[in-house]
Parts: sequence; C-alpha cells; structure tokens
Amino acid sequence: MRKTISIADFVVGGDTFAVMAGPCAVETKEQLFASADAVAAAGAALLRGGAFKPRTSPKSFQGLGTAGLELLSLASQRTGLPVVTEVLDPRDVAAVAEHAAVLQIGARNMQNFPLLREVGRQRLPVLLKRGPAATVEELLYAAQYVTNEGNGNVILCERGIRSFDPSTRYVLDLAIVPVLRERTDLPIVVDPSHGTGRSSLVRPMVLAAAAAGADGVIVEVHADPSKALCDGAQALLPTDFAQMMVDLRRLLPMLGRRLSRPSAAGHATPAQGTISDEFIAP
Amino acid sequence: MRKTISIADFVVGGDTFAVMAGPCAVETKEQLFASADAVAAAGAALLRGGAFKPRTSPKSFQGLGTAGLELLSLASQRTGLPVVTEVLDPRDVAAVAEHAAVLQIGARNMQNFPLLREVGRQRLPVLLKRGPAATVEELLYAAQYVTNEGNGNVILCERGIRSFDPSTRYVLDLAIVPVLRERTDLPIVVDPSHGTGRSSLVRPMVLAAAAAGADGVIVEVHADPSKALCDGAQALLPTDFAQMMVDLRRLLPMLGRRLSRPSAAGHATPAQGTISDEFIAP
Amino acid sequence: MRKTISIADFVVGGDTFAVMAGPCAVETKEQLFASADAVAAAGAALLRGGAFKPRTSPKSFQGLGTAGLELLSLASQRTGLPVVTEVLDPRDVAAVAEHAAVLQIGARNMQNFPLLREVGRQRLPVLLKRGPAATVEELLYAAQYVTNEGNGNVILCERGIRSFDPSTRYVLDLAIVPVLRERTDLPIVVDPSHGTGRSSLVRPMVLAAAAAGADGVIVEVHADPSKALCDGAQALLPTDFAQMMVDLRRLLPMLGRRLSRPSAAGHATPAQGTISDEFIAP
Amino acid sequence: MRKTISIADFVVGGDTFAVMAGPCAVETKEQLFASADAVAAAGAALLRGGAFKPRTSPKSFQGLGTAGLELLSLASQRTGLPVVTEVLDPRDVAAVAEHAAVLQIGARNMQNFPLLREVGRQRLPVLLKRGPAATVEELLYAAQYVTNEGNGNVILCERGIRSFDPSTRYVLDLAIVPVLRERTDLPIVVDPSHGTGRSSLVRPMVLAAAAAGADGVIVEVHADPSKALCDGAQALLPTDFAQMMVDLRRLLPMLGRRLSRPSAAGHATPAQGTISDEFIAP
Repeated sequence: MRKTISIADFVVGGDTFAVMAGPCAVETKEQLFASADAVAAAGAALLRGGAFKPRTSPKSFQGLGTAGLELLSLASQRTGLPVVTEVLDPRDVAAVAEHAAVLQIGARNMQNFPLLREVGRQRLPVLLKRGPAATVEELLYAAQYVTNEGNGNVILCERGIRSFDPSTRYVLDLAIVPVLRERTDLPIVVDPSHGTGRSSLVRPMVLAAAAAGADGVIVEVHADPSKALCDGAQALLPTDFAQMMVDLRRLLPMLGRRLSRPSAAGHATPAQGTISDEFIAP
Repeated sequence: MRKTISIADFVVGGDTFAVMAGPCAVETKEQLFASADAVAAAGAALLRGGAFKPRTSPKSFQGLGTAGLELLSLASQRTGLPVVTEVLDPRDVAAVAEHAAVLQIGARNMQNFPLLREVGRQRLPVLLKRGPAATVEELLYAAQYVTNEGNGNVILCERGIRSFDPSTRYVLDLAIVPVLRERTDLPIVVDPSHGTGRSSLVRPMVLAAAAAGADGVIVEVHADPSKALCDGAQALLPTDFAQMMVDLRRLLPMLGRRLSRPSAAGHATPAQGTISDEFIAP
Repeated sequence: MRKTISIADFVVGGDTFAVMAGPCAVETKEQLFASADAVAAAGAALLRGGAFKPRTSPKSFQGLGTAGLELLSLASQRTGLPVVTEVLDPRDVAAVAEHAAVLQIGARNMQNFPLLREVGRQRLPVLLKRGPAATVEELLYAAQYVTNEGNGNVILCERGIRSFDPSTRYVLDLAIVPVLRERTDLPIVVDPSHGTGRSSLVRPMVLAAAAAGADGVIVEVHADPSKALCDGAQALLPTDFAQMMVDLRRLLPMLGRRLSRPSAAGHATPAQGTISDEFIAP
Repeated sequence: MRKTISIADFVVGGDTFAVMAGPCAVETKEQLFASADAVAAAGAALLRGGAFKPRTSPKSFQGLGTAGLELLSLASQRTGLPVVTEVLDPRDVAAVAEHAAVLQIGARNMQNFPLLREVGRQRLPVLLKRGPAATVEELLYAAQYVTNEGNGNVILCERGIRSFDPSTRYVLDLAIVPVLRERTDLPIVVDPSHGTGRSSLVRPMVLAAAAAGADGVIVEVHADPSKALCDGAQALLPTDFAQMMVDLRRLLPMLGRRLSRPSAAGHATPAQGTISDEFIAP
C-alpha cells in the first residue's frame, strides 16, 4: 500500500489528488486573499504562497518574511485551507512551522543539507522540490536527509529540469512520476507553473501529470498576473484555474482518483503529518 | 480549425487519437505478424516497424532492408493496418514509399536536409521525429524543409530529449505538445517508447500524452521483448499493450477524443495524405 | 604511437598542430579569396569553406553548391592550401571529393549512416564533427561506420554540445580531447567558432584546445563578418586570426608541438590520406 | 585593470596563477599532512580540504566538522599555506572563518541565499562555485548576494555543468572563463577535479584552464586515492600533481602569468582580503 500523508483534514497520496494553489509570493493582504478565495472556491486542497522568496537577483523582491507568514495564517483561517510555504534558512524553520501546514524546500535548496536536517526534526510534512539538475537518485537521497531525522512525511515534487530549449523555462519531466513510484512510496506531486514557466501550458500539464499518476499538483494563481512581483508569466488567472479544476474533476475518476477536499470549512490549525508506510530507499 | 491528415481510412488530428504500434524492427515474418496481429486486435490505427534501422553501432542489426519492406506490406494486407516505417537514405525514398502509408524520418535525421527535401517531393504523409537536442524552432524549420517541397502532410513527433538523468533513456518533453499547438496546426504525436526507454513507463506516458493534447502515440510492441534484436527494454508485451488501449479508451472521451479506427478490415493500399489546413510557420 | 593522417603535404596528428581556417560559407570569389589569402598568410594549414550548407531554416542561404566547390579549388590553387569542405548528401560525395582534400561531415549528420558509409568508400580523409548531443561512445561508433568501409583516415572534431546557458551558442567540451585520446589514436581537432558562437571567445578557446592536447583547430575567418551570409557572429577578422596564430606559435613549443605547415606553395591536387596506425575501437 | 584579491601573502588575479590543492576531505591528521606537505613542496599557493562535506547521500562520510577545521589550521601552520575550506551552514560561518583564509561556497549552495549573505558579512575572500545547472547570469547574481553585503572579495569558480555524457562526471565549461572576463573583474578559477571526475583528465584541463585565461585552479590531491573517503577517482597522486606543476610552470610565462607563491614559509594567520577594483555587475 502506498504511503499517505495527512495534512490538516486532507490526505496526499492514496486515491486522492491534491491541488495546492495560490500566488507565487505573498505581496499584500488584498492580493493574497483574492487568490486564496479563488482557489478555495474552485476546490483547491492547500493554499500555497511564499513569504521567504529565493530570488536569482538580490535586487528582486525577496518576500515579506514574517509579515507574509502572518498573512498566510489569516488567509488559512479565512478559507479553511492549510498552507504550504517555503523555508530558506535553517534558522527560520521554527518560525515558518508556526504558520504552515507543510514546509516547502525549494529546488535551489534540494541539497541544502543543514536545512533538510532541520525540517527533518519538525513534525510537519515537507514538500521537497527536485533541483533543476538533480537525478532521481539525488532527489531520493535528499529525501533521506529529512526522513533520517525522524520526519517521514516527505512529498516529492517534480518542477522541471534545466534544458536547452528556450520555448519553456524548464522541461517538465513527467516520466519521473512512474519512475519514482517504482522506487518509493512517498507521494509525488508536480509543479507545472515553474516546470514550464508559461501560464498557457499549465492546464494541459496538470492533466498530463494526473494521467502520469501524480498524487497532486502545485499551481500558481494570481488575480492580476501582469502586476505580480514574482513569476507572473506562469500564473493562472482565477477563471483559468477554475476551468482547470473542472477538467480535472472530469478526468480524475477515469484514473481512479478523486480530488482531495477539506472535510469542513474554517479550521485553521495545521495538523501534524502521519506516516502510514515506511519510506523505501532506492 | 486544426489540420487533419488522412492515412488510408484513418485520420490523424482533429478529435481522433491515433495509436501507431508494432515492433521496433522487422526481424522475421513470424515476429512481425505476431506483433501486427496483436496491435490490430487491440485497436491500433497504424502498424509501425523498421526495415531500415539507424543503429548507433555499425555492428548492431541494421534491419532487413527491402525484404523487411515486403514483410511490412504482407502484415498490412493481413491486418488492414497502414504502415509507418523509417527511411534513412534519400536514394531509398521511392522504394520505401511503395510499401508505406507514412514515411518516418527518425530523430537522427531531423536535420538531414536532402532527405527532408526528398520526402517533401512524395505525396505520402511524413512522421517527423524531433532530434534529441532539437529546439521547437528547429523542429518546425525541419518540417518546413518538407512542406516547402509541396508535401504539407507532416506529423510532428516528440520522442525524448537528451538529458542528464540515467534513470530514463531520454526525457519525454510533453510540454512541447501544447507549445507546438500554439505555433502550428500540424498533428503532434508522442513516442513514449524511445522517449523513456523503459517499457514500464510507456502506459503512464501514453495517458499523459493524451491528456497533454497529443493527436496520437507511436509505441513499440514485441511478442518476446527479451529476444528483440533492437530496443527490447522499451517494448510492451501484447497483453500490456491491450491493457494500455483499455485505459486509453476510458480516458479519451474525457479529453474530447476517440480512437482513430480502421473503417474496414483487409484494405492494403496506402492512401495519399491530404491537407485540410495550411501549415503555419512559426 | 599515435596515428597521423597525411593531407596533401600536411600532417594531422603526431607532434604537429593543424589550423584549418576560412569562411563559414563560400559566398563570392572575392569574399573567399580575401579570407583564403589572409589565413594562408597567417600560417593556416588547410582552407575551410562550405559550398553545401546545412541550415536550420530552409529560407537561409544554402550555399553555392557546385559553383562553390569550383571556387574552393581556385582558392586552393591560389594559396596552396588543401581544402576541407562539407558534404551533406550521399549523392554528392563523388563531386565534393573532386574538389576537397578532406571531406567534412557536419554535426547534424554525425549519425547519417548512409552518408558515413559513402565517405568511408572514398580515400580522402574525413573530418567527423561530434553531434551536439552525441556521447563519446556515439562519436566513436559513427567513426567506425566510416572506417568499417575501409577508410581509416578519420579526424574527430569537437564542436560544442547543447546546454542550457544562453551566454554561448554551445558548450565546448574540451575534456573530450583527453577522453578520446585514451580510447582512440585518431587525430582530434576542435571547432571553437561553432563551439562558442562568439568571435571574442575563439582565441582563448584555441589556446585552451591546444593545451588540452588537441591536434588542431578549425576556425572561421571572414574579411567582413558583419556582412557574412552565415554565422558572422563567430567569425574572426583576419587581423584577429593573425594575432591568434602569433599566440599559438608561442604556446605550441611548450606543449611539444609545432604548427603543421605547407612544404611548398602552389600545389593544388589534394593527396590521398594514409593510415599509419590502426583505429582502435572503444 | 582587473581586480586582485590578497590572501595571506598571496594574490589571486592579475598576472598570477593560483594553484589551490589538497584532499577533497580532511580524514585524519596523517592523511591531511601527507597531502598538504606534497602540495606545498610542489608549489601550491593555498591548501584546500573539506571539514564540512556536502554529500549526496546522508550515509556517506560527512566530514570531521570542527575537528577537521583544527587539523586544517595545523596543516596551515606546518606548510605556510593559507586554507580554503567549505562552509555549508550559515550558523557555522563564524567558526569556519576562524580557521580559513578563504570561505568556499560549494556548487550545491550557489543559490543558498542566507549562506551567501552570511559570508558577505565576513571580511574573508569567498570562493563561489558555479552550480551544475547555473547560467553565467545566475552565477554573477549569486556573487552579488555576497558583494551587496559589503564583501567584494569573491573568486568565481567553474566546476563543471550537468550534461548527458557519462564519460565525464560533469562537463567543464572553459569558455565561461573569457565570458566572465568580459562581464566582471572578479578573479576566475577552475576546478578540473570535480569538473571532470577523473584524475587522468585533470592535468590537461589545468593547462587548458590556464590557456583559457583562468586566474587559478583548485585541484584534489590525495596520497592514496584508492582509500579516499570522498571522490578518490578524481584525486591526483602527489607525483602526478608535481608533474602538473612542472608543466604549468613551463606554460604560464607564454600566457603572461606566473605562479602565485608564498613570500615566506611558516605564517599561519589568514589575512583579510582586499578589493583593488569595484565589482562590475553584469
């Protein structure tokens, strides 16, 4: 039996399909709430949003930090959606854990071993993104840095690898989903927003990820992508996200899955993840 | 409206989904018929099989050549499936065209411009595979080498790009399907057999290709993969292919598609392709 | 002892270093002669120039064809430099061989097996360029397609591989020089013009190729790069080429090498290559 | 004028060429001293060695930590060579800075922004390794994370990029040396040990790096590579390192450079770096 991870009232893995959605970065309360309300209404299972943003240039918007975490908590209370948000610095893990239901390790930090160990000492589930040049083996070893510290609640995430074609930002490697399925029971989700870098490609790649056997997706949604402070080119409009969810709801039953849904609106306290099976090393 | 290409009684493109299947190489009459019978029974639209094989090593099996073409014609008569087969040498185009319904240009020859021009002077549809390091732009320019000679019946094929992870033979770049859709009306098919190199990944990648919006797939099937003279590791067993078709039949209606099917058994003469829309250059 | 290949009065391999230089494409007599005179005066050993040009787009300049070959012969008579030029089509090999001292197989055709076999049936040396996504093993197998036909005079050429960084056109993989040295006695040359795509990088990469142990380089030189019909951005001005040769002359003795030079000016008949050692398969 | 960085009595940049050498990891006092003595005797300018090791697998040897730093200080006192050593965790920066003359940021941490900021608040020079999938632009932005905090003493290091050919561990991208030279005055060094992963390729790639215009190299040397706890396959034997230095001494004058050498033996206190020119952003 495959591992499932409980997040608040949701489950990732098994026969469910978890849609995590929200803005790339938390910018303002209004911007966050607009996106959060939209993704909640359309049936997302988790709210995503970055308070600490790893940016290529030191001059780019670096996120609101602690203030962003607090806004995420408010958005979570408002929508009932648990929050997945990134942590960059081992010294910030405890603070982020107070506001998050899932701790995200970004692609640039997939082999940031002190950070992996630190989230491994928490009880919250960890969303571990594949680095853009990481092999399957390296991704699984990175997961072991977390699980070896006692936290078996790792969700693996494909988010695109570096390649040569400028027509997409990265190449989304969907075959990694069945490859990982053969080697680990950890849930596997896909990020088509970063993995393609273009909003028009997100919907088909979400459906393809589901068909490939993924346990979920993480998708960027912004009420006004042209004004986004981060990665606007890959953000879906709320209406496009809603249409994507319609398509997904039609497709999932053919794949033996159903959307992971909240059991009740309004709860805010992130629950602790649980391990139902052992992590299997490659 | 998107372009459709007629092949014998079949259509590629539009709201159909064409499954092309058969062995990597034609080895013997028995081997070919076993595979051809199996894919026809399970509902394939075209029979694939190589008579001229481009092999990395000069010491590997290079195909049966003309004798292989004749066996393909026999298998086509037997099953009613039109044949797609590769041509390597501009001097062989006429001979291959006598036995094929679709002329395949392999990935290694995507920028073999004399060969592209030669198949452009034929009236048969051309299946043009993306080179393992080719950009979208380069693929479309290669297609223009064909269409500029007067043959607009080009089917584009994603078959995996070179990358760094040894866990798959190539990386299947499914996002190219919607990327190409924005830039051309030519049909787009996917080869998950070469694109992953592992038979266990073919079924999920076929479903993912369909979900991504592909117009079809080309899949390798061998009655005894362990004895295949070429690429056995990526060939499906007939039973696994049949299961893949069951899954596909369930999924396609949710995507607004149906399997491209033969209208009647027993026909053998490959029909000429027709162009219903103009090719749109990038 | 390492293999050496005789070309007219020149040697490639051993303790010599062969500089092949000239324009990307033959455009006009004046353009070709200007470049040929300049590279001859600066000490090049062979004249390069394309009459049949493989171009990504069918709308780009495709070369002068046979007329270009005749201009190359004139330039060879004028300068005394043997000619290396590309052949694209197996049906053109005999015609090209009448005008060339070395037959070039371009990167796009590294696995064009009918073409490789055809040049393998000639007695002229073959310059075989590595495909942009070819492994060392694939390059050596491609060379075997030539040598298996009886022509052991293969010169291997690194010309850059596809990668992700837009700051250069390709990534010049100089470590392949000592890697190949361990596996074959065939001469190895480097093309820093295509390998980087930028003229300002050519000189340092020529020196680096020499230091890495290459047996020569092939470099593009154009009297007016801004007006070149092909790849002007990577062409050296004659004065920059002359400076490059000065630097090379200073460096080579420290590496146990000297420039390969013509023994006498004015000869025009390309000589047949000879094999001094057997090709060693990987 | 190009920037030079003073390290103890050495200079990196300008007309000098700095050889940094030593074991991959500090294993024992005997092992470290054997390597340190050998590289000092052969003329290295700095001693390299890892106390905190970032390893793909959590089960691999992770370094001796603080005990390794103390051994490095002893080896520095013994040989007079300043130490370059890696720091992985922002919480360890102060401790590492007590024992190092240069703080190394490894390839996996090139975009570990909290760590970059932390070393940017130190006064010691920083050796910043390019990530295996990092573009030139991303490397320069990473350097700006350091310089923006006030520490302009950044040495950029090419150490190989991820690619598709299994014949080397990474592809050493030497063209980045002149590319970076056009965009920044920061010194540029090359790591052919990690960049190729094979000891037999180190010497030719060191010479090629010098010819390409690099300001130095960082090379792994181990007295008994077969017993190394880390990366033995790429470590040079002391005798091979000594031969490499002989070759380098012969080549450098032809390139207008000389080895960076200690002014006097026995000093132990790592000096602070100084900036002689401003960092120029891309």
